[in-house]
Amino acid sequence: MPPRITVLNGPNLGRLGQREPEIYGDTTSAQLGGLCRDWGADLGCKVEYQQTDGEGELISLIHTAGDAADGLVLNAGAYTHTSVAIRDAVQAVAIPVVELHISNPAAREPFRGTNLLTDVVAASLQGFGVEGYRLALAGLLALLGRSRP
Amino acid sequence: MPPRITVLNGPNLGRLGQREPEIYGDTTSAQLGGLCRDWGADLGCKVEYQQTDGEGELISLIHTAGDAADGLVLNAGAYTHTSVAIRDAVQAVAIPVVELHISNPAAREPFRGTNLLTDVVAASLQGFGVEGYRLALAGLLALLGRSRP
Amino acid sequence: MPPRITVLNGPNLGRLGQREPEIYGDTTSAQLGGLCRDWGADLGCKVEYQQTDGEGELISLIHTAGDAADGLVLNAGAYTHTSVAIRDAVQAVAIPVVELHISNPAAREPFRGTNLLTDVVAASLQGFGVEGYRLALAGLLALLGRSRP
Amino acid sequence: MPPRITVLNGPNLGRLGQREPEIYGDTTSAQLGGLCRDWGADLGCKVEYQQTDGEGELISLIHTAGDAADGLVLNAGAYTHTSVAIRDAVQAVAIPVVELHISNPAAREPFRGTNLLTDVVAASLQGFGVEGYRLALAGLLALLGRSRP
Amino acid sequence: MPPRITVLNGPNLGRLGQREPEIYGDTTSAQLGGLCRDWGADLGCKVEYQQTDGEGELISLIHTAGDAADGLVLNAGAYTHTSVAIRDAVQAVAIPVVELHISNPAAREPFRGTNLLTDVVAASLQGFGVEGYRLALAGLLALLGRSRP
Amino acid sequence: MPPRITVLNGPNLGRLGQREPEIYGDTTSAQLGGLCRDWGADLGCKVEYQQTDGEGELISLIHTAGDAADGLVLNAGAYTHTSVAIRDAVQAVAIPVVELHISNPAAREPFRGTNLLTDVVAASLQGFGVEGYRLALAGLLALLGRSRP
Amino acid sequence: MPPRITVLNGPNLGRLGQREPEIYGDTTSAQLGGLCRDWGADLGCKVEYQQTDGEGELISLIHTAGDAADGLVLNAGAYTHTSVAIRDAVQAVAIPVVELHISNPAAREPFRGTNLLTDVVAASLQGFGVEGYRLALAGLLALLGRSRP
Amino acid sequence: MPPRITVLNGPNLGRLGQREPEIYGDTTSAQLGGLCRDWGADLGCKVEYQQTDGEGELISLIHTAGDAADGLVLNAGAYTHTSVAIRDAVQAVAIPVVELHISNPAAREPFRGTNLLTDVVAASLQGFGVEGYRLALAGLLALLGRSRP
Amino acid sequence: MPPRITVLNGPNLGRLGQREPEIYGDTTSAQLGGLCRDWGADLGCKVEYQQTDGEGELISLIHTAGDAADGLVLNAGAYTHTSVAIRDAVQAVAIPVVELHISNPAAREPFRGTNLLTDVVAASLQGFGVEGYRLALAGLLALLGRSRP
Amino acid sequence: MPPRITVLNGPNLGRLGQREPEIYGDTTSAQLGGLCRDWGADLGCKVEYQQTDGEGELISLIHTAGDAADGLVLNAGAYTHTSVAIRDAVQAVAIPVVELHISNPAAREPFRGTNLLTDVVAASLQGFGVEGYRLALAGLLALLGRSRP
Amino acid sequence: MPPRITVLNGPNLGRLGQREPEIYGDTTSAQLGGLCRDWGADLGCKVEYQQTDGEGELISLIHTAGDAADGLVLNAGAYTHTSVAIRDAVQAVAIPVVELHISNPAAREPFRGTNLLTDVVAASLQGFGVEGYRLALAGLLALLGRSRP
Amino acid sequence: MPPRITVLNGPNLGRLGQREPEIYGDTTSAQLGGLCRDWGADLGCKVEYQQTDGEGELISLIHTAGDAADGLVLNAGAYTHTSVAIRDAVQAVAIPVVELHISNPAAREPFRGTNLLTDVVAASLQGFGVEGYRLALAGLLALLGRSRP
Repeated sequence: MPPRITVLNGPNLGRLGQREPEIYGDTTSAQLGGLCRDWGADLGCKVEYQQTDGEGELISLIHTAGDAADGLVLNAGAYTHTSVAIRDAVQAVAIPVVELHISNPAAREPFRGTNLLTDVVAASLQGFGVEGYRLALAGLLALLGRSRP
Repeated sequence: MPPRITVLNGPNLGRLGQREPEIYGDTTSAQLGGLCRDWGADLGCKVEYQQTDGEGELISLIHTAGDAADGLVLNAGAYTHTSVAIRDAVQAVAIPVVELHISNPAAREPFRGTNLLTDVVAASLQGFGVEGYRLALAGLLALLGRSRP
Repeated sequence: MPPRITVLNGPNLGRLGQREPEIYGDTTSAQLGGLCRDWGADLGCKVEYQQTDGEGELISLIHTAGDAADGLVLNAGAYTHTSVAIRDAVQAVAIPVVELHISNPAAREPFRGTNLLTDVVAASLQGFGVEGYRLALAGLLALLGRSRP
Repeated sequence: MPPRITVLNGPNLGRLGQREPEIYGDTTSAQLGGLCRDWGADLGCKVEYQQTDGEGELISLIHTAGDAADGLVLNAGAYTHTSVAIRDAVQAVAIPVVELHISNPAAREPFRGTNLLTDVVAASLQGFGVEGYRLALAGLLALLGRSRP
Repeated sequence: MPPRITVLNGPNLGRLGQREPEIYGDTTSAQLGGLCRDWGADLGCKVEYQQTDGEGELISLIHTAGDAADGLVLNAGAYTHTSVAIRDAVQAVAIPVVELHISNPAAREPFRGTNLLTDVVAASLQGFGVEGYRLALAGLLALLGRSRP
Repeated sequence: MPPRITVLNGPNLGRLGQREPEIYGDTTSAQLGGLCRDWGADLGCKVEYQQTDGEGELISLIHTAGDAADGLVLNAGAYTHTSVAIRDAVQAVAIPVVELHISNPAAREPFRGTNLLTDVVAASLQGFGVEGYRLALAGLLALLGRSRP
Repeated sequence: MPPRITVLNGPNLGRLGQREPEIYGDTTSAQLGGLCRDWGADLGCKVEYQQTDGEGELISLIHTAGDAADGLVLNAGAYTHTSVAIRDAVQAVAIPVVELHISNPAAREPFRGTNLLTDVVAASLQGFGVEGYRLALAGLLALLGRSRP
Repeated sequence: MPPRITVLNGPNLGRLGQREPEIYGDTTSAQLGGLCRDWGADLGCKVEYQQTDGEGELISLIHTAGDAADGLVLNAGAYTHTSVAIRDAVQAVAIPVVELHISNPAAREPFRGTNLLTDVVAASLQGFGVEGYRLALAGLLALLGRSRP
Repeated sequence: MPPRITVLNGPNLGRLGQREPEIYGDTTSAQLGGLCRDWGADLGCKVEYQQTDGEGELISLIHTAGDAADGLVLNAGAYTHTSVAIRDAVQAVAIPVVELHISNPAAREPFRGTNLLTDVVAASLQGFGVEGYRLALAGLLALLGRSRP
Repeated sequence: MPPRITVLNGPNLGRLGQREPEIYGDTTSAQLGGLCRDWGADLGCKVEYQQTDGEGELISLIHTAGDAADGLVLNAGAYTHTSVAIRDAVQAVAIPVVELHISNPAAREPFRGTNLLTDVVAASLQGFGVEGYRLALAGLLALLGRSRP
Repeated sequence: MPPRITVLNGPNLGRLGQREPEIYGDTTSAQLGGLCRDWGADLGCKVEYQQTDGEGELISLIHTAGDAADGLVLNAGAYTHTSVAIRDAVQAVAIPVVELHISNPAAREPFRGTNLLTDVVAASLQGFGVEGYRLALAGLLALLGRSRP
Repeated sequence: MPPRITVLNGPNLGRLGQREPEIYGDTTSAQLGGLCRDWGADLGCKVEYQQTDGEGELISLIHTAGDAADGLVLNAGAYTHTSVAIRDAVQAVAIPVVELHISNPAAREPFRGTNLLTDVVAASLQGFGVEGYRLALAGLLALLGRSRP
């Protein structure tokens, strides 16, 4: 059975393609879901894509992924910088988690220098735009020992 | 068509009138909604009033206001001090946002000195009590070039 | 009428018994609810038990407890370290609140050294495991002047 | 007798209309004095307008306003960020003080994040441009219970 | 043989009942010693009670308790915030230690936010007044697996 | 010839006796000048008393005192916490300087914890109220080796 | 009956006159005790003089002074910068306390910038050398309303 | 002509395969050079691989890559945390740079939280082990618009 | 017409030649004015020299220079470290400003490490003694493209 | 006469050999005293060995050593990180002091990074276990110019 | 014999004229060497010009200049902000050193606010572009007492 | 075969004997190499002595020592305070490392309080002058279990 990967997008990412397209590109959240499923099919895995603005909902979805998937690609958006609770959820699941950011948050405000997730995920990448999701899937499969980019 | 203004109140503001009335006055959240609509009518705009305790819900309501209104009066309550995600939502909408606080948070605990919204809103005011909503509506209309206080 | 106590558990505590049992024990959230009700019966109070992952939901439940209960035992989980809004909710209710942590957060990451609740609750305890809920109920009743541990 | 309001502008504000008009607008200090007097007449109060570059002079003018006026609108300019002595003067007068900034200092250098006045004034507003003086007069009258915006 | 518990009070606690009774209650140190022995008898343990103002003496008493008792209830008073040496002594003994404070130090000066003991004790509680000693004895016995509150 | 002492009071101290008399007493600045001259006569020195709100004026007066007096009692008010320029003036004069505060600034806001003068004056005292000026004159004469309190 | 004043010297002050005489003068601790008694007689009070190196002993002596004297002159030496416990003892006594330092600690290492006593004493003075004890006695009597310097 | 990519490894990476293989794997620096060239061939680019321990040498090699290559994969090792000069070199070249770390430095000492490169590179990734070099090549080609992972 | 340069000296610089001559040399402020005019004549520009102790006066003089001169050499003395208002004045004028210090403030107290002017001036120099004024005039003329040192 | 060396051990070091022997070895305090005397005899000096848990006692023993010995080896244990008073005592004695730690405190908690003694002792060493006392004696004799390791 | 001056440029300055010419101008490093030699001839000194990217090489070249030259103009580039070792080298040489920066680093990232050289050089200047080297030579000769700008 | 020890000196230590001899003594680097070899012969080990100014070279020499020696004495000079890369090299070698400083860096500038090596070496010593190298060799041999000081 092909590995199951959950791709989870956090707050404001539902506005992808509409919000500051010069930074985030013009792919919408729905289109990104389709791309992730297609890339997953190419790489030999089954991708589930979800987005929510709520911190509590994100925590619940991480718990669910921990039960039902083999790996997690997580773009927690701004909660990356503030949520100890999401960090706790990531630590509570047994599957490998790859953290992803579309742009490069390091180049922005100082409070984005605080990252509460990086040291509890297996790996992370940022700045590759929407293409980063494909690299994250490939890298996660490599960590799972199942496929190659 | 008169300009549409959304007034958005965040966490604990549903308890207005019940919680610490010596600081926040005895107007309830429902009464404040009525007042805002009346003040809007006087000033020549149409006011939509909403309150929620949830960070994610607040983000979604800001997105909605960005699509459906001409301006936003935002009292994000305690999320003002902690939520990068709400800040991102404010930055993602194209309409002018006026930040408002009923009392003067600067006179309270040090962690209320951190304000994640002030530098991404058009203008802000604080300490005028419930009257501040009227000033905020007037000021927002002035920023929109449509009316005067 | 026996005093009514609400026991409120925050984010990730729905996973109790499954998440890191060597730290948190193997009692599940549902079992803990039953234990709290039984301990309450022994100590002469009526216990209501609730758990949620959402910050906004937790705020609403604190408001409800403030209206309907005589005391509150609150384990706000990771929101303890980040949520000014929950702090505001605790300050807004008139009943005594006892803060509780199952393990000892002080022994963990530096950002867990920030506790936004301790100075607005009546009392707090940590590190007694699931037994801590019984001590918290007994201590809260002592604060209410109704029972003894 | 109509209430007397002093409007006090601090350092560099004598250059209003000449200095960075894209930020501060093209109204000069003299014109602003006239506008304030006119707005005051409309709102039913008598406005005295003054400007000085000196910290000591500003302190003396605050003392004078405390003796001779019913309320004070204060734009202390850059002294807002550095002057404990002006803060002391504001605390020493018994009349309500509304703090005002033409633009939004929070969006500028980090040292402008230090504000020594906000927690000793009754209320404050910023970012409304020259229009902010009218809102400040209206808000101050509301605080005095004499007029409405 | 019943378990032996040492209760150790640090600097200024000899003045209990005399110093700021509105905060600390009117039970004297001698009376508290009697209460602890009685509560211990009820809970099925033998309590030794001691108080000293000296940091060095406190260290020596912790060493002695480590040799002669099965558990330690420690209220190190203000040394909690400053003494690395007492922390070292706590780490050097093999018996479980429960930290206790009568009032809630978190609600006081910032330097009381530094707690050098919390992360090396088994558990801690604060804010329950003199009743807290009873809860601490009960909780310590629970940690030792010998009794219940 | 008796030693000449200048007593120099800084910003807001012209309002002495009117401003917060419960803290600063009800002696006015003019009365204090008279008291200082009388105390000086008793202690065998000639006192010159001056007050100004301006930082630059204070600097000039310190220079003048450095040329014309044998010692300086300086209450720089709030400039104590912010003025490097006054510090430079104190360092530039060759006569001993005694720093004085009427109340105890340490018990107030954190920014009053910064004192730019204490380490460049000969001695300092605070909290003795208006009586402190007499102690300062006596202490300064002792430093000059001319008289005793 | 003349007022009773305790003069209390802390760690290393037993070496007065031997340790760095160019800073602290050549008066020994025993001689200083005699001087204080003589100065007290001149000023109309009865002085008790004590010195100890121990933090716990100093706490006990402060308690004793609180019971047996009308005022306290305290030179806590280096404990001034580190002892929250001595601060607690000072806060626990009901008599006025004057803090004293022989030299000017502000001119030394940065950690001497932390002063845990200044904001809980009635008044303080520093830098007057051994003469400072006489000024402190005079000032304390003035605070007690019994004598003049 | 296929794009030319330089892969540059900094200090201590010459010891790859020998140093802490449980963290960094057992691939040597020479083998990694071969792998990079092979992966490049697969992905359709020409890879140049270099390693140096010297900060100055690394700067010179970045300059050279800026002249001779179309893109740069840079693992600056510990210089990432300390070298403003390497940051300047990265800013001085016109080609896109992808930053890479084999393990996850965020999970280590606090001083590794300082990253002087992240905000001046196009993209970055970490924690994928030696596989990360392949992902970096693929991602860099995607940024160059020439190939896909 | 030769370019007009204003040389502006701030607080305490009126005491030049009298204050700490081993650091600042023995040239008085009046002599320095003459030297600047002579050097200006040699270099082909017309120099206006002014000194004031007041922050407000300095601001006004900067405004005047902005209207009447082609360049400004500014030694703001200690205000360099504390005055945001002078910084604002420098930013408000359109002519190039060269910042100058006679000695090297970096070698002194830590609070002199804060420089509020350096990043808003065109260029700066320090440590060349009174000769620095000549270099500053030459450098300013070079920036104006009119002369050479 | 052979030089006299005092070896002084501070808090918790009386438990040497019993406390965490995997870190501190199994030599007891009494045995260490014997070893030091033997090593001293080998190296040609007379060693006095003492241990105390009390800060005040340690200060007194340092004073005594300053009078009666030619050099001091000091292991102040945890007081190293917190005691300004012991620092003062070390500064007050005229004999050379060598600071010693058995293990390497730098590898432990951040608050052990504060060392109040290192910059006032002649030399220091750490991490050599109980052998370090022998090296300290040899090094101290070298500093005294009397013997060689 | 004319004085010998070494001009030393550090990392990335070999790219002068190629790297960001809008900031640094279009003079290359080789051309700058020629200009310095010419300017030196005009001013009456003999200039040696060198550039290196390596920190160790820069240290060695400073040592060499200390032996062979009468003065040093040093542009240490980014090492200015990070290298204690270069600071040590500057302190170890007996000749006067003038620090130079082509542009104004204060206007850039916060970490460029750390300058490890300024307080150990005789004088410094910045922001005059390539012309600054001529001013530095003139100023250094003035410090040497040999020539004038 | 006798143990092989590498003694490695870092930046500026090639100037030993020439640079600030009152602090560092008048032994040159070459003479120190000879002394180390002689002391090694006395203590029964074979000493290799090297010095370099370059950070990269120092890293390479540490790698070489890790392969070819049984222990390392490292005086990394100023790189001690800034080089994470040298720290990584020390962590990467399997032999014990003793850190050494000739003088006492703690008594110097605050940035020398940062020590990146102490917590990754086996032991360290400082302040014993050139004699410290002999103590370090003796201590290192003790750690290796081969010889005694």
